[in-house]
Amino acid sequence: MEKGTLLYEGKAKKLFKTTDPAVVWAEYLNQATALNGLKKDQINGKGELNNQITAYIFDFLNTKEINNHFIKKISSTEQLIQPLEIIPLEVVVRNVAAGSFSKRLGITEGEVLDQPIVEFYYKEDQLDDPMVIDAHINYLGLASDQELAQLRQLALKINQALNELFNSIEIALIDFKVEFGRQKDGSILLADEISPDTCRLWDKKTNEHLDKDIYRRNLGDIVPVYQEVLNRLEKRGK
Amino acid sequence: MEKGTLLYEGKAKKLFKTTDPAVVWAEYLNQATALNGLKKDQINGKGELNNQITAYIFDFLNTKEINNHFIKKISSTEQLIQPLEIIPLEVVVRNVAAGSFSKRLGITEGEVLDQPIVEFYYKEDQLDDPMVIDAHINYLGLASDQELAQLRQLALKINQALNELFNSIEIALIDFKVEFGRQKDGSILLADEISPDTCRLWDKKTNEHLDKDIYRRNLGDIVPVYQEVLNRLEKRGK
Repeated sequence: MEKGTLLYEGKAKKLFKTTDPAVVWAEYLNQATALNGLKKDQINGKGELNNQITAYIFDFLNTKEINNHFIKKISSTEQLIQPLEIIPLEVVVRNVAAGSFSKRLGITEGEVLDQPIVEFYYKEDQLDDPMVIDAHINYLGLASDQELAQLRQLALKINQALNELFNSIEIALIDFKVEFGRQKDGSILLADEISPDTCRLWDKKTNEHLDKDIYRRNLGDIVPVYQEVLNRLEKRGK
Repeated sequence: MEKGTLLYEGKAKKLFKTTDPAVVWAEYLNQATALNGLKKDQINGKGELNNQITAYIFDFLNTKEINNHFIKKISSTEQLIQPLEIIPLEVVVRNVAAGSFSKRLGITEGEVLDQPIVEFYYKEDQLDDPMVIDAHINYLGLASDQELAQLRQLALKINQALNELFNSIEIALIDFKVEFGRQKDGSILLADEISPDTCRLWDKKTNEHLDKDIYRRNLGDIVPVYQEVLNRLEKRGK
């Protein structure tokens, strides 16, 4: 199997065709962006860390019977994944108030929610990824009612699994964003990545950010912080 | 019955106690605001027009068995209403894409929705009235699940009645905002006002704005436009 032409270039990843139609080649980039691309930097080591963290987490989710697009890691910055038609929704699950949720609703950052909250955002850079309700999603034809019910259920199942994982390495899972895609037969798979770029992770003892807020909020260098997350995962074992 | 002390001063109305605990005295102001109060003007005649239009519409809704807080008009700018505990939600119903909906979702203004869409906004000036989903409303304790279901149902029933009313005077009801309140026994009543301040109304023949967008978008003087809406309603008769 060989790497083919570029399929898609995102902010954090490039996807390539391969000679096998059932396999896509993903390359994790060193680019960090925030504020919908207004803030942008090259950070050496970031692609490598997110590739490894995502590979670890997708393997873990497989053991929890949460099907996802990950096939295998093939280099420090590359992994093979299944081709999917991406559903243009960012599915956000929140366990603790933080970030835009706190600002929008006037809820103190750090306030624990009595139950996880699932939100949908329309993945559309030009519109700044607006929050959407089911009626908007229907009207825009982004996903069917059935699919939405499935996405909600899957998001909560992933939340449960990730909470177990991060708890075991003394990290609180504040919130996270996931994306999903459709296989040819219409079935839905977890896609994209799960990393400190897409999760808010707070150290359980110190409440320190172990995630992209370090970059968003200019709190320092993300590399040692992402490395800390990877170290704890690797120390934990499979 | 006499007018008592000030209960509440909003952007467009003042509410006063009366000597009858079952009656509140509402005075419609000449103030117009937009952009969450950033744009603000005194417009002579506006209070009078909205008081009369709201009185007409609330009377009409009564004939459609949509209970509301309106008791009776007592002067050109004043009406008596029932006291309610206001639910801090703006309930928006949309029939045609316009305004923030169009901007947020990238949908051309004027596109007819295949079915009405109900949205909730958290009535909180300091937060700029953010759109909220049921889970936010639950967490903030703004309304129970049962109440939300009722608000949705009522909003759609009001939409049906208002569509009938405005159709009969050659006006297209693009969207509108309503507020609701709780009576002492917990039952829910339509509250606030329904006027060109709270509805988007387009002339059916010319598509001209007959509403507050004239003010928001600096398209001219709202008084003759609001007067036109009132004239058409009065010509229609009861």
